[in-house]
Amino acid sequence: MLELLEEHGIVDNFRRLSGRKQAPRRGPLYTDSDLYKWIEAAAFVLQSGDQPELRATVDRIIDDILAAQEPSGYLNTYYQDDKKALRFTEMQRSHELYCLGHLLQAAIAYYRATGDRKLLDGGIRYANYLIDKRPLLTGHPELEMALVELYRTTGERKYLDLAGYLLSGVETERLHLKPSDVRYMFSGIPFTSRTVFEGHAVRAMYASSGATDYYAETGDPAYRSTLDTLWADLTQRKMYITGGVGSRSSGEAFGDAYELPNGAAYTESCAAIGNMMWNFRMLAISGKAQYADVIERALFNGINSGMSLNGTLYCYRNPLASDGEKIRNEWYDTTCCPPNLERVLASLPGYYYATSKDGIYVHMYGPSELKWRLEDGTPIEVVQKTTYPWSGDVALTVSPEKAADFAFYVRVPAWSRRTSITVNGKSAGAARSGEYFPIRRTWKSGDQVELRFDMTPQLMAANPRIPEDFGKVAVGRGPLVYCLEHVDQKGAIPDLLFANPGAAFQTEWRGDLLGGIDVLRHGGAELGKPSAQQPLYESFGAVSTKPAELTFIPYYAWANREPGAMEVWVPVQVSDTRR
Amino acid sequence: MLELLEEHGIVDNFRRLSGRKQAPRRGPLYTDSDLYKWIEAAAFVLQSGDQPELRATVDRIIDDILAAQEPSGYLNTYYQDDKKALRFTEMQRSHELYCLGHLLQAAIAYYRATGDRKLLDGGIRYANYLIDKRPLLTGHPELEMALVELYRTTGERKYLDLAGYLLSGVETERLHLKPSDVRYMFSGIPFTSRTVFEGHAVRAMYASSGATDYYAETGDPAYRSTLDTLWADLTQRKMYITGGVGSRSSGEAFGDAYELPNGAAYTESCAAIGNMMWNFRMLAISGKAQYADVIERALFNGINSGMSLNGTLYCYRNPLASDGEKIRNEWYDTTCCPPNLERVLASLPGYYYATSKDGIYVHMYGPSELKWRLEDGTPIEVVQKTTYPWSGDVALTVSPEKAADFAFYVRVPAWSRRTSITVNGKSAGAARSGEYFPIRRTWKSGDQVELRFDMTPQLMAANPRIPEDFGKVAVGRGPLVYCLEHVDQKGAIPDLLFANPGAAFQTEWRGDLLGGIDVLRHGGAELGKPSAQQPLYESFGAVSTKPAELTFIPYYAWANREPGAMEVWVPVQVSDTRR
Repeated sequence: MLELLEEHGIVDNFRRLSGRKQAPRRGPLYTDSDLYKWIEAAAFVLQSGDQPELRATVDRIIDDILAAQEPSGYLNTYYQDDKKALRFTEMQRSHELYCLGHLLQAAIAYYRATGDRKLLDGGIRYANYLIDKRPLLTGHPELEMALVELYRTTGERKYLDLAGYLLSGVETERLHLKPSDVRYMFSGIPFTSRTVFEGHAVRAMYASSGATDYYAETGDPAYRSTLDTLWADLTQRKMYITGGVGSRSSGEAFGDAYELPNGAAYTESCAAIGNMMWNFRMLAISGKAQYADVIERALFNGINSGMSLNGTLYCYRNPLASDGEKIRNEWYDTTCCPPNLERVLASLPGYYYATSKDGIYVHMYGPSELKWRLEDGTPIEVVQKTTYPWSGDVALTVSPEKAADFAFYVRVPAWSRRTSITVNGKSAGAARSGEYFPIRRTWKSGDQVELRFDMTPQLMAANPRIPEDFGKVAVGRGPLVYCLEHVDQKGAIPDLLFANPGAAFQTEWRGDLLGGIDVLRHGGAELGKPSAQQPLYESFGAVSTKPAELTFIPYYAWANREPGAMEVWVPVQVSDTRR
Repeated sequence: MLELLEEHGIVDNFRRLSGRKQAPRRGPLYTDSDLYKWIEAAAFVLQSGDQPELRATVDRIIDDILAAQEPSGYLNTYYQDDKKALRFTEMQRSHELYCLGHLLQAAIAYYRATGDRKLLDGGIRYANYLIDKRPLLTGHPELEMALVELYRTTGERKYLDLAGYLLSGVETERLHLKPSDVRYMFSGIPFTSRTVFEGHAVRAMYASSGATDYYAETGDPAYRSTLDTLWADLTQRKMYITGGVGSRSSGEAFGDAYELPNGAAYTESCAAIGNMMWNFRMLAISGKAQYADVIERALFNGINSGMSLNGTLYCYRNPLASDGEKIRNEWYDTTCCPPNLERVLASLPGYYYATSKDGIYVHMYGPSELKWRLEDGTPIEVVQKTTYPWSGDVALTVSPEKAADFAFYVRVPAWSRRTSITVNGKSAGAARSGEYFPIRRTWKSGDQVELRFDMTPQLMAANPRIPEDFGKVAVGRGPLVYCLEHVDQKGAIPDLLFANPGAAFQTEWRGDLLGGIDVLRHGGAELGKPSAQQPLYESFGAVSTKPAELTFIPYYAWANREPGAMEVWVPVQVSDTRR
């Protein structure tokens, strides 16, 4: 990624300002943020253990960045030099505050990884530069989250207050913002006046993330009420089954309620990432498993699909159906998604476990080791062994440094219809789907918790109000949404139907395929005559079919082989009851 | 309509140029065409018999129009006066040639109705003004049709040649037309290079109509091949079951193949009219009933829906599903559709019958009287008695002035599965659906032809490639497409399902309802819990239902009562085979 950023002049944009390089500025006005996201990704990696070579590289880049910073603190490669006069005059499009937000997030992650304050101090200088400047507008929300995190990092209330100002939307009139502007930007009016998601999906997710952070630190009930309303709007009316969000290419925007087209889905990788980031914050303020279910849905499906299995090609859109057009590229002119995918995957260790006053939570499943402390200071280690999501068996070894009473909360995913939980071989009680199951006891080093989730493949149906999904099923297994991809089928995808929904799937582990996956097979049917040769309209029940086997792969793994059609929602064969 | 045109200053736009009125010009740059369409409508009415008051009104308007014409022949209320310098400099948007096309069509219709040449001569002066002007571009095709008709009316080849020049698309480079321009305008490149419908639907339909007219007069086989290719693209991939065309609001445009959303359908009234006009021309060059089937589909459904039952409110869009938003208005800023609906309904007598060398065709069914002549000059009268489309029984009395051998072609609609045809009470033979049935004999005055079409309600299914229609049915009866409208149902429309497709419909004549219609009733189901309260995704088969009766009305008659939801494609209840 850094090689690509160098190749496209994104780092040179800083070097030209410091005189280290003679070159014209390249790329759209928000390119600084892409480099910051790369630094944040690298910093997350460094948080899990030092890597001297990577750290040296990051240090060199940070040095290039800081050398471009003005003495005033201002730092933006587009609005320094010849565009200086435009600074803060076109905040609806400028991405100035957006870039600062990414700078601060990178700086905080790097500071936490290394203890080195240099990038953090640079970020703080810029933040202080505009702390009293008015009016301000986050045309693309992002800075709100970063400011709350800066407050947490420095303890300085003024950053939290600035986040509150940005969320307050008090500058609508002074900035002459039109209704269409504030709808698109998801900023510029009071966040607490929002009732539905609309406009640019990434902006809406980032704004909601920032608002949740702000609520976490202030407890302002108006925010909580708005966040709950918006979450219901998202999860009951506007989210894809993959956790992707944003239905329309035009404006990279949310659609109306139930407007969730499959092939036309925009579902930008950054928007699914924003959805996960927001739900992580909702989880943190509530401890409710419904948010972790959305995190998992987005992570394993609509986010994971964004990066190719070899890690070098990226999706900008993550549609739920395709006729085989090229979807993965190593670079985009607006290349927000690739480094965003890198930073979110690098940040995953932070999503697995959390503590509360009375114990510790296991949010996510996957092989991992936690070395942390309970909130009373007791050091604790948790070792998680599993091949999740292929198996539903998870073994956790809980080792507090000394015997301690606390609750060990294990998340029971909503999709697991039957779950068993044992502690040292004995049942811990009946677990309910979609909740955290608290195991309260005196824990001592080496205690064993074993979970067994129900990984039976499931058929899902969509709300009948979603126009494109009626009469179709999606296949899920554990947290994974599956799909049909052309290369695995004998028939052509738009002509394949799902048959006999009551029959079981065959599950087969294929270690040689797509990095190792469980393949699912099920009986289906193929149209007797290809749909492309059939009339546009004909008598109901006139279509003939022949049996066919359907082979499903996890959605995230599609588009890693030869190009071809794909679909998540598969039409169900309807028998003509007149015959 | 004329009152509305006066009220909005559309006629005054002419009067201000002649000094008869002091007023600023009003409305978009194409308003002249709306008045011309009104004149053409009035002229079609006058073709069926003189109405002195209407004629006097038209004469007065024509006088106002011609008083505004420049001595040069140029006539366009937007590009005379202060905008004169822009004339022919912005033909991609100017609608100059479009307005001339409508002027010529109005003039020809009026001339045919009355024999009065004054408007025709005015149109010819303008046509002659630009006969050698180059480059020309029909940014909105329309003039092509009018020029071929002017050639037919005057016998002057230069008008046909000008139509050929406009269709030839030889000015692409000289006018610096971009690919996106020629796609949107459906002009500017050779018509014969087209292979698919794309861009602005009305422009595409008008261009195809003009190209068919040109083919009819020249026989150029390249045109025929292109027209056949485009017709297959339209009817196999891009036409709604209502005969409406144009899927996207953005650009008022065609979508991709099978992109036929219901609620979001643009389906402009003018585009359905264009579809009918084009198919009438395809019918004229071929004598094939498949084109008449499209005419009937568009006329009885996607066009007829465009005007309210009381004739004063118009649809611009004619979607196939609605959540109840206001769809009919008496006026639009771009008011192309209302006068277009008037002229097409007024022109219907011209669609019913046609002659060929060997006889006479009955294209359309409806109570009517024809007084015309065979192509050998024999005067003939045909009287058609029927309550079609409510009844499938049609009685035709064929009365040549003297006994004559000729073929009497009766159209057997594609939807009629069983058709009986008798002549003077005796079977005329086995009729095939979707073809013209020729009855060859020696006809004498008073011969009786009786047709009986199969009016059993039918369930239609869409090609599985149409994303929004899978698992749904549309109800048809004869030429009419039916729909569910909110006010007739006990349950809420998005929560109603079609059940038991094998059961028969109940048909009930309701003379008191919506101007008199046959209502269709069928068993259905209603979701046990409203869809708005159901989760976005849940286990397949988990939805409970209760029985409900569905009441269908003809699609054309919707939105004439209290506002409410409507849908043409009704989801079919799928039984969960696992139970």
